[in-house]
Amino acid sequence: MQLGMIGLGRMGANIVRRIVKDGHTAVGYERRPKAIDELRQELGDDFRGSTDLTEFVQALQTPRVVWVMIPAGATGAVIDQVAELLEPGDIIIDGGNSRYHEDIARAERLTPKGIHYVDIGTSGGVFGLTRGFCLMIGGEPEPVRYLDPLLRSIAPGVEAAERTPGRTGEPSPAEQGYLHCGPAGAGHFVKMVHNGIEYGAMAAYAEGLNILHKADFGATHAGEFSAEETPLEHPEHYRYDLDIPEVTEVWRRGSVVASWLLDLTASALYADPNLDSYSGRVSDSGEGRWTLDAAIDTGVPAPVLAAAVFQRFSSRGESLYADKMLSAMRKAFGGHNELPGK
Amino acid sequence: MQLGMIGLGRMGANIVRRIVKDGHTAVGYERRPKAIDELRQELGDDFRGSTDLTEFVQALQTPRVVWVMIPAGATGAVIDQVAELLEPGDIIIDGGNSRYHEDIARAERLTPKGIHYVDIGTSGGVFGLTRGFCLMIGGEPEPVRYLDPLLRSIAPGVEAAERTPGRTGEPSPAEQGYLHCGPAGAGHFVKMVHNGIEYGAMAAYAEGLNILHKADFGATHAGEFSAEETPLEHPEHYRYDLDIPEVTEVWRRGSVVASWLLDLTASALYADPNLDSYSGRVSDSGEGRWTLDAAIDTGVPAPVLAAAVFQRFSSRGESLYADKMLSAMRKAFGGHNELPGK
Amino acid sequence: MQLGMIGLGRMGANIVRRIVKDGHTAVGYERRPKAIDELRQELGDDFRGSTDLTEFVQALQTPRVVWVMIPAGATGAVIDQVAELLEPGDIIIDGGNSRYHEDIARAERLTPKGIHYVDIGTSGGVFGLTRGFCLMIGGEPEPVRYLDPLLRSIAPGVEAAERTPGRTGEPSPAEQGYLHCGPAGAGHFVKMVHNGIEYGAMAAYAEGLNILHKADFGATHAGEFSAEETPLEHPEHYRYDLDIPEVTEVWRRGSVVASWLLDLTASALYADPNLDSYSGRVSDSGEGRWTLDAAIDTGVPAPVLAAAVFQRFSSRGESLYADKMLSAMRKAFGGHNELPGK
Amino acid sequence: MQLGMIGLGRMGANIVRRIVKDGHTAVGYERRPKAIDELRQELGDDFRGSTDLTEFVQALQTPRVVWVMIPAGATGAVIDQVAELLEPGDIIIDGGNSRYHEDIARAERLTPKGIHYVDIGTSGGVFGLTRGFCLMIGGEPEPVRYLDPLLRSIAPGVEAAERTPGRTGEPSPAEQGYLHCGPAGAGHFVKMVHNGIEYGAMAAYAEGLNILHKADFGATHAGEFSAEETPLEHPEHYRYDLDIPEVTEVWRRGSVVASWLLDLTASALYADPNLDSYSGRVSDSGEGRWTLDAAIDTGVPAPVLAAAVFQRFSSRGESLYADKMLSAMRKAFGGHNELPGK
Repeated sequence: MQLGMIGLGRMGANIVRRIVKDGHTAVGYERRPKAIDELRQELGDDFRGSTDLTEFVQALQTPRVVWVMIPAGATGAVIDQVAELLEPGDIIIDGGNSRYHEDIARAERLTPKGIHYVDIGTSGGVFGLTRGFCLMIGGEPEPVRYLDPLLRSIAPGVEAAERTPGRTGEPSPAEQGYLHCGPAGAGHFVKMVHNGIEYGAMAAYAEGLNILHKADFGATHAGEFSAEETPLEHPEHYRYDLDIPEVTEVWRRGSVVASWLLDLTASALYADPNLDSYSGRVSDSGEGRWTLDAAIDTGVPAPVLAAAVFQRFSSRGESLYADKMLSAMRKAFGGHNELPGK
Repeated sequence: MQLGMIGLGRMGANIVRRIVKDGHTAVGYERRPKAIDELRQELGDDFRGSTDLTEFVQALQTPRVVWVMIPAGATGAVIDQVAELLEPGDIIIDGGNSRYHEDIARAERLTPKGIHYVDIGTSGGVFGLTRGFCLMIGGEPEPVRYLDPLLRSIAPGVEAAERTPGRTGEPSPAEQGYLHCGPAGAGHFVKMVHNGIEYGAMAAYAEGLNILHKADFGATHAGEFSAEETPLEHPEHYRYDLDIPEVTEVWRRGSVVASWLLDLTASALYADPNLDSYSGRVSDSGEGRWTLDAAIDTGVPAPVLAAAVFQRFSSRGESLYADKMLSAMRKAFGGHNELPGK
Repeated sequence: MQLGMIGLGRMGANIVRRIVKDGHTAVGYERRPKAIDELRQELGDDFRGSTDLTEFVQALQTPRVVWVMIPAGATGAVIDQVAELLEPGDIIIDGGNSRYHEDIARAERLTPKGIHYVDIGTSGGVFGLTRGFCLMIGGEPEPVRYLDPLLRSIAPGVEAAERTPGRTGEPSPAEQGYLHCGPAGAGHFVKMVHNGIEYGAMAAYAEGLNILHKADFGATHAGEFSAEETPLEHPEHYRYDLDIPEVTEVWRRGSVVASWLLDLTASALYADPNLDSYSGRVSDSGEGRWTLDAAIDTGVPAPVLAAAVFQRFSSRGESLYADKMLSAMRKAFGGHNELPGK
Repeated sequence: MQLGMIGLGRMGANIVRRIVKDGHTAVGYERRPKAIDELRQELGDDFRGSTDLTEFVQALQTPRVVWVMIPAGATGAVIDQVAELLEPGDIIIDGGNSRYHEDIARAERLTPKGIHYVDIGTSGGVFGLTRGFCLMIGGEPEPVRYLDPLLRSIAPGVEAAERTPGRTGEPSPAEQGYLHCGPAGAGHFVKMVHNGIEYGAMAAYAEGLNILHKADFGATHAGEFSAEETPLEHPEHYRYDLDIPEVTEVWRRGSVVASWLLDLTASALYADPNLDSYSGRVSDSGEGRWTLDAAIDTGVPAPVLAAAVFQRFSSRGESLYADKMLSAMRKAFGGHNELPGK
């Protein structure tokens, strides 16, 4: 089967690599000729590329399959552009990080033209090439069924994890790592919540490790508390000098918190045991926020996910005004002065 | 009636002032002769003071009433010391910010000696002299009843607020601003939770005002978002340049969030509209933490109070290690680099 | 001056009462003739009413001032309808609980027609008649200035609270209880955040009082813990049987948490000391959610306000699915069975 | 090497099985003769058991290794009892879920007697037999070193997960699944925080899945909102009927949230797709609370872990009083009645 890929960045190129390795062919579009040439050299005749969108579209067999894999900000314009060049029966896939609202709107625009719109939330990050990509898919049933051979090649495959007890026989698509979640937007919706969960789980590890990090507080701060600080009642309970990289390593095997995130954390800590290469200014790329928006819209409590998102805002200094306000109130009612040091 | 006051700092001196103004007499103990002299000059013969603890105790009529009003860290030792000098029937009051656990332990030690122990959580801060102090009291019923004339003078009195609808006739002690809450420790327990609530309410104002503060985000950041930032979908919704000091002022009258904390906030913002004199390093003096400990021990959900306490920790840089950990994870799975700037 | 009021429900009627009492006149529109008749009887010739919108508009002096005070769901349609009947120079006020996004859109539609649009967030609830309404105003400067005499009559007035130290001379509008916050939507924006703060402060009180409520846990549950429960380490610390209505009463005078919300809480608890008339299913009317949306959009941490909103969702059973999921996980990894009782 | 095991419940018996399978021998103590007989039958001569503590101790070679693996509530008494029967040089291990404070106290009592005390936080649950147990160890270096052959047999071994990039050569103990964390209590401290993280991660999944669960809200609730509810602005955004069991399955392969907890969740959902066998009353067994206590003591922000613990309290009805209080306030200031239904 043939796949057209718009965008040959890390994610796009790796998807192309996985399908070509599995016997499919690919046509790529990219503005940078170098990216095309390199991939051509690596993959041989099974891959062709073009820096011209019309040429790219013409090189595709019908019904055309066009996967758009570019930064979210540029996706909308490119989809509009390529849709002009397509014919009824063709399929456009948004595999990036668009908000699912946009999928709903795009499907409404493209369906009357006979063009199928499929949104695919794609998880896997820099490890997708070897580990496979987890694919969460939204769209009409027919085009999604048509894409099955490609999806199967991109996804990790059932052998990537032990089968869930009770699941036997031919593995379902979900067991192979791809799932048709529902109509337009459903793929990005599920991916969005996936990332929301990711934020929460990351924060759980980070907070816990911070507690371990400060387990020596009773040894380092015994008895040095000013009137504006709460003295530590039992310094003898906090005299542990823990080796955090080793702790994350030991949890990787046999423990209830074993996870791929923990694997990566152990790896990062092995490389940089004191995290000296980080400033602690944590970005967020939207999905966590949108997950909260969905929770708020539908009245679902999400205190953990919210705390995780807000902690990222706070890491970027966004609590400062609120913190000054608190100090101003304390000064006003109690005459308290701030502690020096910030 | 006569009150013995150990500690003539702001709080102790103001309590003495209130009772003397109301016709009682006071004896003070302080290490700093100057504090005694000044109060003597101000209050005349109704006040006597000593820098010697034994002399102080001897100057008191029996049954002696000794109110200890010194920093929490020093309170325990002084109570032990003065208890040695007292006789059965005498009353010791801890009016400071001791943890209520200590009240329970102290009462157990002092009761067999016939000495009555009373804990009084005292709220009012720097405004107590004119506004009166709100008193939350723990101890046996008899000594608390004996103290009634003093407590009444220290408390604000019923006229400090409109009477609650339905409450008529002779105002209860609670309506006058003092309440016998229960046995030893009950006063400090209620005061502790009072402060926990205070933390939560302060944080509610601070967060809300921070949102107002950033209501111009769409005007100041239109279109300047990097790949590691979430673009603002509707910049036209965030183009307000709000006058925060005026907003806090307008809320003081007629609104649902009118409160004494808001009065103080408006006052602080009038004096320093941009909060330039604060660094945003917010102290916590224990009661908020202890409130959480009580919630955790008894299985009561306290997400708002916890968020408020944790925000204070975070304002002092205590999230940094966790934040670096998050950045390390993001780098590991997605190759994301941190934004510059912290 | 003359005010046209659309909607003579509790809020609309009370605003009319306040301005008429202050020497202005009013024309009302309502579908229910009875509401008009009653107000006419009460206020005499200074008030006229109509059940016909065109008649209502014709009865107004130009430039007309039309205040719309009806449920948020119906506001948009009525504003569109009345705008058709107005002339350039007239003023429409939305005094209800519209989302500020709508104000921005409406002003954009009405400005080209020469009609002035003013949004007024109105706080005060059932007490507004006697206490005055706190008014947060958005719109162009000119029409807001024109409305000044009416706003001044509706607002509480400077005497409703002690003046903030340093504020002297002629009281500013904010000191009288009304504030022009900015362009269209600014009034509802500030009111929205006001309500977000209100949610947070309410939750702070509710959580704290819940901790006090369970302060007898050590007396009621000593030693009866199953293997699936955490035993209470120090039952002797939780043996207080606190009188919550009295505690809220004592805090009303002299304490740092004194507030109008506390006044109302004390009042509710005096009337129903065990809260037997409530089921604990807490509604939210949108502003809290929208405040969170604004925080999320602009990257402002709001953990306290979020916890307060989520707690309301949870009170309505919306955590149930998540809670079942947790039990399912516990069963899966540890063989834990749920405790009976829910 | 020989291990003495007190308590042949699921955990104790499985540890015995693992070491015997690996060539060691074991002596067991249990009150239930049946548990001993069954294990004897299964394991043959490499296992002996006794229902008499003295006999059990006498059957052990010196230096004796006694692992106590019984419910936390009973552990203290049994350790005291067995310590009376031991000699200098012997080792007692607490492998249960004791609070680490107790380890510190026990080590202080036992060290003067020459008895070595080792605390081992043990993770693995019902899967430990096949998967191996993750062991977090506290105590003096020498006895921990002495135990190495046993620990290695109980732990999962390096092959249980891919090695962390950069880690080469002879795998460290942490890579095999056991780690000497520090002095007495360090093992239970690390295990405690491990469980705190587990609570947070579990809540992240549960909240996210709840959002997916309600993704059909726009289809099921279009337009049916009372005045006390927030209408859904965009019902068209919430019309997904998602298959949650399949979603958890697809995330198991290739996604960033893949984890052992997710494996178990997928398994539980495959067996009971609508979670009908759960009531949603979620227990907590202490470690989550203690993790928060540690965070509070040392001033570390832990908003996610706290929200997770509080959500469990709330699932058991512990928010009810607070919720009623909120309804009472709403009624008081706005005349709002509660929605029916709870």
